[in-house]
Amino acid sequence: MKKQLHILAFAGSLRKDSYNRKVLSLACNSLPEGTSYEIFELNDIPLFNEDVEALGFPESVAAFRQKIQKADALVIACPEYNSSITGVLKNALDWASRSENKQPNPLIKKPVAILGVGERGGTSRAQYHLRQVLNHLNMYVINKPEILISIKSEKTFDEKGNLMDEFAINLIKKLLTSLIDFTYQMRK
Amino acid sequence: MKKQLHILAFAGSLRKDSYNRKVLSLACNSLPEGTSYEIFELNDIPLFNEDVEALGFPESVAAFRQKIQKADALVIACPEYNSSITGVLKNALDWASRSENKQPNPLIKKPVAILGVGERGGTSRAQYHLRQVLNHLNMYVINKPEILISIKSEKTFDEKGNLMDEFAINLIKKLLTSLIDFTYQMRK
Repeated sequence: MKKQLHILAFAGSLRKDSYNRKVLSLACNSLPEGTSYEIFELNDIPLFNEDVEALGFPESVAAFRQKIQKADALVIACPEYNSSITGVLKNALDWASRSENKQPNPLIKKPVAILGVGERGGTSRAQYHLRQVLNHLNMYVINKPEILISIKSEKTFDEKGNLMDEFAINLIKKLLTSLIDFTYQMRK
Repeated sequence: MKKQLHILAFAGSLRKDSYNRKVLSLACNSLPEGTSYEIFELNDIPLFNEDVEALGFPESVAAFRQKIQKADALVIACPEYNSSITGVLKNALDWASRSENKQPNPLIKKPVAILGVGERGGTSRAQYHLRQVLNHLNMYVINKPEILISIKSEKTFDEKGNLMDEFAINLIKKLLTSLIDFTYQMRK
């Protein structure tokens, strides 16, 4: 029997009704049995400042880092702002990546899956920037399938913002299966 | 006689003794006569949140946007964190780029020069991400010379963190000359 896996998920948008947060919730609800998850909110992570860090990690940052450390894998919802990842997401990763204060960088060698909802390109440009950052951090980024969901496509979302596109929903399930299979594989 | 130009400058690092901030100060002090400047601090810019924006721009954001609007050109010091631009810088640009609340995006068609201080690559990867973002924003990014200053090179900085490399100092002057010539050219 497979061991229990725990997933930490977070979205790069703080907007309450963000499509990316909704699709992240849907993804987490699609995780197979034997998998637990938590969605972490980035609202309380302050702007990164090395002078602040020198006094110790702020409480929200310490909590975020600890939850990453304890998770077996991550899922990141990656909105696209101005052809790149959001400042909010990059700032959270900047804090998480630090190996100061005698604490190791908890992101290293963590499996991670990416999904995104955006305009025409479906966050493809942001996701390439994000992949470069996560590669730099020596994380195991799941390559395929890519989840590039366009808000503007007809029938993708219903009026309440729920993802209705069966093709996209199935792709998300495939991505999560890849993430979980990879994570178990790395444990062997 | 040339008209007066005003430059707004900001750095993507909040650390007080940041090399990028020091080099930005040096650059601003090297501006030719007939040019005024202000260095804007990004410390008070909150995390971007569309729900907050819907209530109106926060005071610090409104001030930042107004100063961009009034400036003839920008200079950005671009540190590199995790192979990309800092969350702090991207977050500030995300706020500045918005065209909600009946206020136009003040970044559009603004001339901008980039410089950076970093480890081996001298922020080259971050600067490419930044250029993509600024191109998306339809800003006029000065192409050459590129200012990629390596902290680790011997004799680049003195013990107090002052830039000592005459070659780099001259390159910065050339960059600013390019920025100013271009800005005047666009006014014709």
